[in-house]
Amino acid sequence: MNLITVEDVHAAAERIKDTAVRTPLLACGWADADRSLWLKPENLQPVGAFKIRGAANAMARIPSSARANGVVAYSSGNHAQAVAYVAKRFGLPATIVVPENTPATKIEATRSHGAEVVVVPITDRELVAERLVAERGATLIPPFDHPDVIAGQGTIGLEIAADLPEVEAVLVPVSGGGLASGVATAIKALCPRAAVIGVEPALAGDAAESLAAGHRVRWSEEDRARTIADGLRAAPSELTFAHLKERVDTIVTVSEEEIRAAVVTLATRARLVAEPSGAVSTAAYLHRAADLPQGRTVAIVSGGNLERTLLAEILTQTTGR
Amino acid sequence: MNLITVEDVHAAAERIKDTAVRTPLLACGWADADRSLWLKPENLQPVGAFKIRGAANAMARIPSSARANGVVAYSSGNHAQAVAYVAKRFGLPATIVVPENTPATKIEATRSHGAEVVVVPITDRELVAERLVAERGATLIPPFDHPDVIAGQGTIGLEIAADLPEVEAVLVPVSGGGLASGVATAIKALCPRAAVIGVEPALAGDAAESLAAGHRVRWSEEDRARTIADGLRAAPSELTFAHLKERVDTIVTVSEEEIRAAVVTLATRARLVAEPSGAVSTAAYLHRAADLPQGRTVAIVSGGNLERTLLAEILTQTTGR
Repeated sequence: MNLITVEDVHAAAERIKDTAVRTPLLACGWADADRSLWLKPENLQPVGAFKIRGAANAMARIPSSARANGVVAYSSGNHAQAVAYVAKRFGLPATIVVPENTPATKIEATRSHGAEVVVVPITDRELVAERLVAERGATLIPPFDHPDVIAGQGTIGLEIAADLPEVEAVLVPVSGGGLASGVATAIKALCPRAAVIGVEPALAGDAAESLAAGHRVRWSEEDRARTIADGLRAAPSELTFAHLKERVDTIVTVSEEEIRAAVVTLATRARLVAEPSGAVSTAAYLHRAADLPQGRTVAIVSGGNLERTLLAEILTQTTGR
Repeated sequence: MNLITVEDVHAAAERIKDTAVRTPLLACGWADADRSLWLKPENLQPVGAFKIRGAANAMARIPSSARANGVVAYSSGNHAQAVAYVAKRFGLPATIVVPENTPATKIEATRSHGAEVVVVPITDRELVAERLVAERGATLIPPFDHPDVIAGQGTIGLEIAADLPEVEAVLVPVSGGGLASGVATAIKALCPRAAVIGVEPALAGDAAESLAAGHRVRWSEEDRARTIADGLRAAPSELTFAHLKERVDTIVTVSEEEIRAAVVTLATRARLVAEPSGAVSTAAYLHRAADLPQGRTVAIVSGGNLERTLLAEILTQTTGR
């Protein structure tokens, strides 16, 4: 299994620099004395999530002969928005295949970026996407299972290393594992003393169990769907798991209540709207101190797309720090 | 009346560069086609507001002979937090004089930065602060009525000019006028074609009325206290009004409902928690198009400190765009 290299990530950074926001590191005055905390607010990207980085790198690499045939993605979440947004910027036609249970607001948001949206039964998603690719000569942009996507997400690690070279721990949400794979590649190359810690909801803790076991352990989709962190319900692929095994130190899990509390903390103390999936790294910082290294810590806030009503409910009902 | 110059602002930028976050400009995909919008998220500063810039510049200029005597500020809001935070970073003792109706959470936040908090009847604030200055040889850090504070806030304008030199309109909240004075100084020097538009709540529209009249018109404190934008209840000083008159094109006002709607828009579409005072510039963008220039627009989101319950209430009860 070939892993990506930090050179791949440097090349990605050059390709995406006009598309993704160079997010700042935000120091948190409320951190513990022996564990300074900085947030990397990827919720501030144009579509509200880091996904734009991988999508932009993958699309920048499509050969000119294939560009007019466009791109295809299957996703109902942040990856769909990211592919649609980047395709519009790059002038490529985009088709997004979404399952029929996708909320109308998400379909509308995807269409607002100019993408064609194809609604299909959930079990047909991959099949329809592959057929579109075959019929049109379009390029499939997968959400995480691709070296270019991983390298694009890794640019977050480059920016952390540049802004805080003395970083000692990086906390990164894990779902399909593309973000963690890319970030770990950059951090381990540039800040070899720093630990890279994945974070999952306990209710979708398949990657944590897999990493502990040394091989991929399958959880059912139904099990993974229980968490409020709807962006963290995917499972690592062979490719991303190989990266996690080699470059991520460990994966810790957090409870649903801890995730909600972190959404509150981010809103009130960091003035950031984070979706539950984006808040798990902060939840680990706040509630898993015993399992984490001490020292200078960066938590990646990976996204900020949640319904207004859910945000209000969490702010009203959760006891936050 | 001597106005500050862009050179003063450049000097301030050098002094505060290790204290204030270099905030990015965030492009808004949801903007009108003929009025691209970028947000300048000053709510991401360590204390949640731009105030840190002016406070840091003023404190950096205290002569070494006076530094051990510390600083004094009177404020119950973001300026108090900013002075306390910067003083701690600079190793200066800080005393903050607050009125007795200040919420306990704000007093606690100020103390958490290591500042001494003196609680006094609201009418005694200035008197007590001046006595402390006289007794201790301390330096008063005013919230806006000082050239160094104005120059510090102006560094926001430098960053806008550097990141978007082709900017055509800058929307900036107005209260005491320090932020608008500083930003207008930088923008008019570096992007002379750009308009600088102040924004006030209609319920605290004294600066708008003053600028239209060409002289300062006094509104009562009671009148100015009606707005939900509690950071915009001050009135310009002679010094800041001279800057506004010379360098700000106009001041527009927004309604309370428009402010609330902008808080919702910033949370859901820009993933930023903005306090009502910080949202007025976005409210003007959304609801005062007819009064604003077309073209590339930057709205300064000046702060993000609001009670969790108020944020939840606004998210629940307001119809946002």
